[in-house]
Amino acid sequence: MNKKSIAVDMDNVLVDIEVNWIEAYEEAFGVRIAREAMLGIPEDQAFPDPAAAWSLLYKPGFFRNAPVIAGAQEAILKLQEHFDIYIVSAAMEFPNSLLEKYDWLNEHFPSIHWRNIVLCGDKSVIHTDYLIDDHLKNLDHTRAEPILFSASHNAGIDKHRRVNSWAEVLEFFETEIAG
Amino acid sequence: MNKKSIAVDMDNVLVDIEVNWIEAYEEAFGVRIAREAMLGIPEDQAFPDPAAAWSLLYKPGFFRNAPVIAGAQEAILKLQEHFDIYIVSAAMEFPNSLLEKYDWLNEHFPSIHWRNIVLCGDKSVIHTDYLIDDHLKNLDHTRAEPILFSASHNAGIDKHRRVNSWAEVLEFFETEIAG
Repeated sequence: MNKKSIAVDMDNVLVDIEVNWIEAYEEAFGVRIAREAMLGIPEDQAFPDPAAAWSLLYKPGFFRNAPVIAGAQEAILKLQEHFDIYIVSAAMEFPNSLLEKYDWLNEHFPSIHWRNIVLCGDKSVIHTDYLIDDHLKNLDHTRAEPILFSASHNAGIDKHRRVNSWAEVLEFFETEIAG
Repeated sequence: MNKKSIAVDMDNVLVDIEVNWIEAYEEAFGVRIAREAMLGIPEDQAFPDPAAAWSLLYKPGFFRNAPVIAGAQEAILKLQEHFDIYIVSAAMEFPNSLLEKYDWLNEHFPSIHWRNIVLCGDKSVIHTDYLIDDHLKNLDHTRAEPILFSASHNAGIDKHRRVNSWAEVLEFFETEIAG
């Protein structure tokens, strides 16, 4: 039997983009915001100067040097035993990030083959069995079973199955495998 | 009603990769092969030294400076009136090509929004209504209606609907629209 497939988003799911953004802003502008400032609003709005924060996304190295979300590496290895894992990132808005994201995956997730990496724009043309993502714009229109990965910006949203950590992702898929 | 969607491959469909490869090989190694040498075999096998030919794919500028296939620009503009066009390229094998392909599209197909660009590996996770491609490895396992775009390497293959030019692509979709 073919394995079922899971599409896994990068930013806020594999990549701790919140911490990365906070640190990049502090380094560039000397102001450190608290992570809690991002609760329930788009990340850039949490900074004193949202346009300045946004400009950091275009800086070389921003995506390449971001830290991994806790538990993601071990969880992906476990999931690969039972599922085809595709990494699907809406990277096309930031063309400078394309090679950085590829290199980042190679460093932190060497078990992901290039055949299983998708850098795209609109994710509605991606067809997998599941999609783990932090953005409603991706989850609302997917053909996959949507799984909302908690990030500060999506706090309080009561839509789709929510997972708060990679431990919860594994818990969910263990019941899927058993069922 | 939603528009139907067409996934369009890049190399050998939008990009004249055969001419580009022949010219890059001549420039690097001083030998010019005839395009006819590529008939019915993988492109690299048409060169005196296939490994040397393959190495050209990793050279900066190879994909960025390739010429456009005749008729593609006008045809894409026409098709966009009736269809959602997604450019879907298995670029991930050549990570150096990612930004080059994005820049190439921006130059030659400015009507293609970043949301409609997909750089991937395995195309089986892409779900559109149609897929125009020159490779059986992509067409054989697609959920889309497959359309084989003629390239030297696929000469003689009697599988899937074949189109020999962008004029024939337009012809096909005119009957689809009318039907």
